[in-house]
Amino acid sequence: MTLYENFDFKPLVVLHFSSTTPDETKNWVIKRLIARQDEDDGADLLVRYDTDPESHNDILLIGATLDRLLLGAEELRIKKPYKNDTLHEFLISDIHNFKNSENLDNFLLKSEKQVIIWDEIQNVRPMQHEHTVPGVPTKSITPNNDTILGLLRDLDFVISVFPLHDKEAIKLMEHDWFMSTHSFFKSQDIHKIRNYFGENVAYYFAFLEFYTKALIPTSILGFLVSIWPGSEFLKYSLFCIFNVIWWSIFMEQWKRLSNKLAYQWGSYDFKVFERPRSLYYGDLQLSPITNQPERVYPRWKRILKKYLVTYPVVMCCLALSLWIYFGYYRIQIKTNNNYPLDSSLFSIHAKLMRTMPSAGYSLLIIPMNLIYKKIATYLTDYENHRLQTGYENNLTSKLFVFYFINCFIGLFYEGFFNVNYGNVVQLLISLVILNAIFLKFTEQIGPYVLKRIKRNQLTEGKPQIGQVSDAVKQAKTLISFDGTYGDYLTIFEQYGYVALFSAVFPWIAICALINNIFELRADAFKYCHVYQRPFAQRAWNIGSWRYAFDILSSIAIVTNTALIAMQPSVREYFSSYTDAEYFLIFVAAEHILLALKFAISFAIPSTPAEVQIAKNKHLYESYQALRLERERRTLKAQVSIKKH
Amino acid sequence: MTLYENFDFKPLVVLHFSSTTPDETKNWVIKRLIARQDEDDGADLLVRYDTDPESHNDILLIGATLDRLLLGAEELRIKKPYKNDTLHEFLISDIHNFKNSENLDNFLLKSEKQVIIWDEIQNVRPMQHEHTVPGVPTKSITPNNDTILGLLRDLDFVISVFPLHDKEAIKLMEHDWFMSTHSFFKSQDIHKIRNYFGENVAYYFAFLEFYTKALIPTSILGFLVSIWPGSEFLKYSLFCIFNVIWWSIFMEQWKRLSNKLAYQWGSYDFKVFERPRSLYYGDLQLSPITNQPERVYPRWKRILKKYLVTYPVVMCCLALSLWIYFGYYRIQIKTNNNYPLDSSLFSIHAKLMRTMPSAGYSLLIIPMNLIYKKIATYLTDYENHRLQTGYENNLTSKLFVFYFINCFIGLFYEGFFNVNYGNVVQLLISLVILNAIFLKFTEQIGPYVLKRIKRNQLTEGKPQIGQVSDAVKQAKTLISFDGTYGDYLTIFEQYGYVALFSAVFPWIAICALINNIFELRADAFKYCHVYQRPFAQRAWNIGSWRYAFDILSSIAIVTNTALIAMQPSVREYFSSYTDAEYFLIFVAAEHILLALKFAISFAIPSTPAEVQIAKNKHLYESYQALRLERERRTLKAQVSIKKH
Repeated sequence: MTLYENFDFKPLVVLHFSSTTPDETKNWVIKRLIARQDEDDGADLLVRYDTDPESHNDILLIGATLDRLLLGAEELRIKKPYKNDTLHEFLISDIHNFKNSENLDNFLLKSEKQVIIWDEIQNVRPMQHEHTVPGVPTKSITPNNDTILGLLRDLDFVISVFPLHDKEAIKLMEHDWFMSTHSFFKSQDIHKIRNYFGENVAYYFAFLEFYTKALIPTSILGFLVSIWPGSEFLKYSLFCIFNVIWWSIFMEQWKRLSNKLAYQWGSYDFKVFERPRSLYYGDLQLSPITNQPERVYPRWKRILKKYLVTYPVVMCCLALSLWIYFGYYRIQIKTNNNYPLDSSLFSIHAKLMRTMPSAGYSLLIIPMNLIYKKIATYLTDYENHRLQTGYENNLTSKLFVFYFINCFIGLFYEGFFNVNYGNVVQLLISLVILNAIFLKFTEQIGPYVLKRIKRNQLTEGKPQIGQVSDAVKQAKTLISFDGTYGDYLTIFEQYGYVALFSAVFPWIAICALINNIFELRADAFKYCHVYQRPFAQRAWNIGSWRYAFDILSSIAIVTNTALIAMQPSVREYFSSYTDAEYFLIFVAAEHILLALKFAISFAIPSTPAEVQIAKNKHLYESYQALRLERERRTLKAQVSIKKH
Repeated sequence: MTLYENFDFKPLVVLHFSSTTPDETKNWVIKRLIARQDEDDGADLLVRYDTDPESHNDILLIGATLDRLLLGAEELRIKKPYKNDTLHEFLISDIHNFKNSENLDNFLLKSEKQVIIWDEIQNVRPMQHEHTVPGVPTKSITPNNDTILGLLRDLDFVISVFPLHDKEAIKLMEHDWFMSTHSFFKSQDIHKIRNYFGENVAYYFAFLEFYTKALIPTSILGFLVSIWPGSEFLKYSLFCIFNVIWWSIFMEQWKRLSNKLAYQWGSYDFKVFERPRSLYYGDLQLSPITNQPERVYPRWKRILKKYLVTYPVVMCCLALSLWIYFGYYRIQIKTNNNYPLDSSLFSIHAKLMRTMPSAGYSLLIIPMNLIYKKIATYLTDYENHRLQTGYENNLTSKLFVFYFINCFIGLFYEGFFNVNYGNVVQLLISLVILNAIFLKFTEQIGPYVLKRIKRNQLTEGKPQIGQVSDAVKQAKTLISFDGTYGDYLTIFEQYGYVALFSAVFPWIAICALINNIFELRADAFKYCHVYQRPFAQRAWNIGSWRYAFDILSSIAIVTNTALIAMQPSVREYFSSYTDAEYFLIFVAAEHILLALKFAISFAIPSTPAEVQIAKNKHLYESYQALRLERERRTLKAQVSIKKH
């Protein structure tokens, strides 16, 4: 076949066809990927099948020439450092001003190259004259609308598209990150993580580390509060005030760090130039910003979908979740009645039986969360958001509402309606411990074991492991990456336990701290060895999660003052006051703490001064350039007038 | 004298010397104002004394040539509309693309010309070799630091610098604004106001109108609530919920309108290019943004000043204000005891005597506010803020805290500690009415009468009024403009009464509405006929006032639910509940309303979509220009390399 002009390139991205894909379709895809840009807007990439017999021609390796990659970098406005270390959008004509431009092969990061290829794969379309998918005559093509990847996905011909892991880079990275003992006493090198996994993932790890560090003072104080003898009221209210101030400062400092990272990574102005998601569909129109044709889906349709479908479905899910909780609750009461604690003989047995319902409920919550995540993803897909960031924010909001109810309803009910702190603590412990164990198993250990088994199957009967190609191994043994939601949800849930209920159970912060020290390493391991490599995705903050954590902090003020006020020992402390006065004191305290929180978040500017100056400098330069440009245009116009 | 090269220009700005200024100093000032820019950075303006004998050579008229003004417009980055109605920074070389560029004399607005001249007057400095002020050998000059205007102000040689009113423009503007009856049924033409007075003043009027319109539904509902028979609880809680939702939407819609205006006026990106205040002092350093030399005052010094001087002084003022309130309160109690209401004979007399202390207190508040304003201004001057916006925000915050205590402490104390609604209503009425009457007198009617008297003195013994020149009249009969603070404070105070206490006195919204309809016209009159014309000042929103109003709205939720809960009739309505349960219900309701407020402000985007698109378009174009600029630079470099 004359299709494969260049066999000997370094593959960067893998396209894994399903075994049902007809050869004709595969050839068509390859043709479009190889076609030059002047041939009906082809992708101009390099493509070959993996040579491993295991691949059965299902595994397509994709790369690109250096020129193609540099062009793509310019098009995607990738920012690279100048020799003076300031970031600038990459321009081929300006290449000699950039750092490392002497060694062009390594000028772009591997993750950047992969994103450039990914962008092409997502956007390559059938040729104008094609009306059905070759090999599948029944599947018709909507001209100007369908992408090749979209068609393949509709037909279930694609199992996954993923960038290849870089074993050497991982080796270098994992040593400092989680493989050595001294990694426990060192901060992660977040820039290395960003360079390998992209900003989206790097933000997750930066946040997890920042949050874990913020847990240290709370843990120490929580520990002291638990063991210190003395008035419960003074101890707990001190702890509560400290927590309000501490977590308010934490959120603000995170915003500052987050903005600083966005500046260092050059992604702070990315929202202006963010390209639409490949799955976004709509009619072609001229963009009011860039004046280029782009897809537009009417806003009112999306709003209609939200109000008519999304919100009702979410409501139903919430109702179901509440129903399950109260079902569990009835069982718990019945169990408690059946196994009273007063008979000393059956005490252990009774205690065990009494924990069964709460353990069962905790176990039930986890699959419910997973199912709901699928529903939320489906709904958000259906809403057809234009930008990835908008998509993720909408998904996050849905997850937030549901997880909030699902994870905390039990604790709220026990704490505030039944005023049964024993149950709250018991529930907290079972939720935290089960969660930690269960998640480690489902997310990390399980898949890792599965990966080993699969790999053994692949290499069975072969003398050398090296025989199976990397691409095949990664396609068949690793799990495909589906976003950082799950990881954020885990921290979110934990932060909820820590923030909302620390007044009744100060030890929880220590549990969280210990858990997170391992969580961070386990997550790092998961990203390196269990997941397929994710395409680097640009980001300038953690998205809606910021608001989710902020809302939790506000609610925490309410719950903590309420929990303190409801302690009998505290009521005793204020025994000279009437009920109404007592109530008033705590409501006033709560309002003062809420005001304090807002004052703190108002007083700390969320962008560090040096970042603000640098941004303004860039803006100033752009404006100056625009003026120069206009002056030049005028000059040209005058010259051309004189000529005529 | 050869100084006056050009007598026959249209004066735009007046510099009013005090009568003590030595002629030598005046001549020096004139020389520096006339000096060309290449002569030690002179101002290159046109200058002559007013010819009216009344002026005694104290009144200097200042103008500029057209070329000078156009250059200044380019330097100040004034935005003007292109022929296609999009705003662009003015560039002389690009002038033929701008609207109205055929008629160059009227191309710039008068207010723009005045600002250009004002900028020069503020920034012109003594020559390098001058070490003392001519005419005042004792006053030495700090080279590179003192401006001429600063020196004159130090020596009290300047009474005022102000732009001349434009009688014809005022005639055209005032008809639609406040002089005709049909102006009552029409919105103001905010763009006309902006073109004449600048954005700062225009924002005030836009906000006042927007707020007044927002009062209409509240007034109607308040009226219905007052007259409708039926359960007090349902009525008041309905009214309260409506108010929370309504004012939350109001604040968000105002932000939207405010951003839209900022876009239409091209001031949305002004903060990047804002020039330092002329009163700002500091050492010359290179700006990290523009790379031009600029004055820098260390941040830590300002912070130190704030913590060591500003905050303690403000605290003392607040303490004094509280002390005066409780003094008044003791007198009120004594009066109430001396004049009991039960003896029917002295009832009217007693009622009258009982209102005396509250009336006296209300009258005392007004001068206290004025004195405090002077203190706050002094402190903010002392803090040496770099930008006018920073200066104003700091001043506003100080005023906000003090006015909040001063205006509302009495109402809070009566409402929440004494639970005496009769007193609250009485205090509200006297505060609102006295305020309205007193302010109209001190701010509008009084000065206007004074102006007439002064004008009569000027024209006394002269057959024709026209003999006295405009400049002399405006300098001697009009009050010098000192910012919009006073006007905002008036609305702020009124909004406080309306928002915080509407639950006990729904009529207050109607009072406010009626007052504001007249207030707007009276203020407009004041700006046109009582004040000297202000220099147009750029602004992109109402500054810190936005936060002040937002904070009031939040506090209003707390006060209104509390006021409702404290009504005996409402308690009766919930008579089946215990005190604790009753309390809990209202605290829960309050929290839900607070959450609702935040949800509304989160859900409504504060920038309208079309403005966001337009901004992004401009940003995109600037970035594109920067890329082009870089490509061009590279090309030039390559060419020059080839040459060598």
